[in-house]
Amino acid sequence: MTERVVVVGGGFAGVLAVRGLRRADVEVTLIDRQNFYLFQPLAYQVATGSLSAEEVAVPLRQIVRRQKHTQVILGEVTGFDLATRHVIVDHLPNGARGVRLPYDTLVVAGGSRYSYFGHDEWAAHAPELKSLEGAINLRDRILLAFEAAETETDEAARDAWLTFVVVGAGPTGVEMAGQIAELGHTLRPEYRSVDTSKARVLLIEATEHVLGAFPDPLPRKAEAQLVSLGVTPMLSTTVVDIDGTSVEVQAADGARKRIPARTAVWAAGVTASPLASLLAKAVGAETDRAGRLTVEPDLTLPGHPEVFALGDMVSVRGQQLHGVAPVAMQQGGHAARSIMRGKREPFHYRDKGELATIGHVRAVGVVKGVKLSGFVAWALWLGIHIAYLIGFQNRLIVLTRWTFSYFTRGRGARVIHGS
Amino acid sequence: MTERVVVVGGGFAGVLAVRGLRRADVEVTLIDRQNFYLFQPLAYQVATGSLSAEEVAVPLRQIVRRQKHTQVILGEVTGFDLATRHVIVDHLPNGARGVRLPYDTLVVAGGSRYSYFGHDEWAAHAPELKSLEGAINLRDRILLAFEAAETETDEAARDAWLTFVVVGAGPTGVEMAGQIAELGHTLRPEYRSVDTSKARVLLIEATEHVLGAFPDPLPRKAEAQLVSLGVTPMLSTTVVDIDGTSVEVQAADGARKRIPARTAVWAAGVTASPLASLLAKAVGAETDRAGRLTVEPDLTLPGHPEVFALGDMVSVRGQQLHGVAPVAMQQGGHAARSIMRGKREPFHYRDKGELATIGHVRAVGVVKGVKLSGFVAWALWLGIHIAYLIGFQNRLIVLTRWTFSYFTRGRGARVIHGS
Repeated sequence: MTERVVVVGGGFAGVLAVRGLRRADVEVTLIDRQNFYLFQPLAYQVATGSLSAEEVAVPLRQIVRRQKHTQVILGEVTGFDLATRHVIVDHLPNGARGVRLPYDTLVVAGGSRYSYFGHDEWAAHAPELKSLEGAINLRDRILLAFEAAETETDEAARDAWLTFVVVGAGPTGVEMAGQIAELGHTLRPEYRSVDTSKARVLLIEATEHVLGAFPDPLPRKAEAQLVSLGVTPMLSTTVVDIDGTSVEVQAADGARKRIPARTAVWAAGVTASPLASLLAKAVGAETDRAGRLTVEPDLTLPGHPEVFALGDMVSVRGQQLHGVAPVAMQQGGHAARSIMRGKREPFHYRDKGELATIGHVRAVGVVKGVKLSGFVAWALWLGIHIAYLIGFQNRLIVLTRWTFSYFTRGRGARVIHGS
Repeated sequence: MTERVVVVGGGFAGVLAVRGLRRADVEVTLIDRQNFYLFQPLAYQVATGSLSAEEVAVPLRQIVRRQKHTQVILGEVTGFDLATRHVIVDHLPNGARGVRLPYDTLVVAGGSRYSYFGHDEWAAHAPELKSLEGAINLRDRILLAFEAAETETDEAARDAWLTFVVVGAGPTGVEMAGQIAELGHTLRPEYRSVDTSKARVLLIEATEHVLGAFPDPLPRKAEAQLVSLGVTPMLSTTVVDIDGTSVEVQAADGARKRIPARTAVWAAGVTASPLASLLAKAVGAETDRAGRLTVEPDLTLPGHPEVFALGDMVSVRGQQLHGVAPVAMQQGGHAARSIMRGKREPFHYRDKGELATIGHVRAVGVVKGVKLSGFVAWALWLGIHIAYLIGFQNRLIVLTRWTFSYFTRGRGARVIHGS
């Protein structure tokens, strides 16, 4: 009988694993709760009105259209029966629950989500950018904040609508802060009562620098670029409260300050998908502080060479890897190759570098050990993101939108969906 | 003091009125509940995964960006004080309510919405296509129905998921039925357990023909084109119940039949915006059966030459006009010219014709009195819809998507947002 491979999760790791198996003599089943693959590095452009959801989200079925041995199932995985080798799937679109799906080889890649450091009540006031839903929610809030400022006559209230707080200055937070500041400039000619370019964008970061994972002098360059766009980095500062009308922060010296701000964006800590602890329990293991499962150097579960766990939800024993897209993608490819060869070999990450864009012709990064900033980094960022988008049509459309934005600073995707 | 013109409604009539006033020496305020202008004739392409919402919805502020004397306000108009010349606006984005906005000249263009013939409970099971929200809701349901069929093992249940009922065979219903049938063909190579091209699409119409407003022999040609796509027109048939799992219909002879069908689309009767009855009450007039207000031949309210009412929500005394986009657009232009000239003159509709597309290279229409069908009608439909889209960028992107669809039959915008 043909080997049955079940892949759980249609993110970078899962999709790359499935694509890697396109010529393999196996039966593949890909399970995800959503019908699309989200190109998450561009979600912040959906949140700031540059791109539409459909331009960064490709249907999973379309991706595996030509892989006739690959089946897609929409549903939520709620359990693993490692002894009998079954995955338990709930919430299928026809209402079915508790469906037991057999496998010979299992690949689990549930990814990560933002964690609010034990303050789940902040989630309602500060959406995140890992999900398409969060990105669309943020777009609604950001655009409505400008609308509210336009109709508000009380000066203090107006200032609160025009204050945007971004929590966390990793690549996503930096990109988001830069984009909100640029959005204020874009919108300026469209508003009559307020000067949207005067919007305050505060970027809160607990450590001493933005983009802490980047080598010197890139964090300082990024800070300068952010300031030139009108963003105020607040370093060595932590958030102690978010309530929808204000954000309370605490400086390194312990001094607290409450900032009236109607809009907040969460781009701080992440936690692994609950699938990590589900798998950990199944083998009697523990997850780490970030909720991640520790896997063997070959990316398999200890004692279970037939079970791979990949991407943001795992840490690889003996390796220090960031939770970034290239790691997940390479792990997906590695798992596919291991399955095809019927061998288990250690995974080695090939670090090609990292880029973060800040705004129009502003970016920093390290590519193959070379530190870059400004135009070169920005052009590279653009090229790489277009290249990694799935689908020629989406590439063409995103390129069209970016070309227009480059010349006009316009943002063509500014529909407020809510209300 | 400069004349203050308040325009209520950012649809075809309202936006054309505002654009018509771009060189006028007046102050314009445009009020709408949503921040975008929806190109409603293409909403069905959003519902069937061909276009993204942002490609058919342009921010109102972007449209009037260069009209420095034009202000946009997001809010819901809940009253008119014709005596003191004020509009009452509720639900502003900053939470303000009951804001009184003064005007010298008022233009009201609230449009229409679908009416469920007194069965509002059907709305939950059969969304409509007048609103972007309805179109996105329909897309989710249609795509999820195919997904459910794929995981369903019971044959009868699967057939119900693969049965789509479209109620009403005017242009929107015909377009929608054709597109669902084509979607089934597009999806076929992406599904493994079901043959999506075998989906049943039933087009229910109370009269004897589809596209009843078109001259002979176009309705019969349209029917033949629909059948060739796999749509089953059920003519002289009315809907008596819709409950989410089935649709009950009644034939002309009174025979009733319950059809198991999970997905229904409402494209039947329309009713005027509640703004029509609000205005009618203000002058002590009545609305007609379709909820429309009757206006003078110059489009003003009887006894109120300073108040225009336009578009789908009005009937013009002595004129028989359809509730179609060109009528609304020309009325908007007429109101703008009347305001600029300070004169009130009768409105005359210039009927350039009407087109309805059925699917790939399938369409019918009348253009300047000439009856067309097939490729010519389809190409004209395409050209006109691209030309009337607002914004060069959107035109380019929609054209890109359509070019891809033409060659690949693909549909690039198939994100399921709900769940």
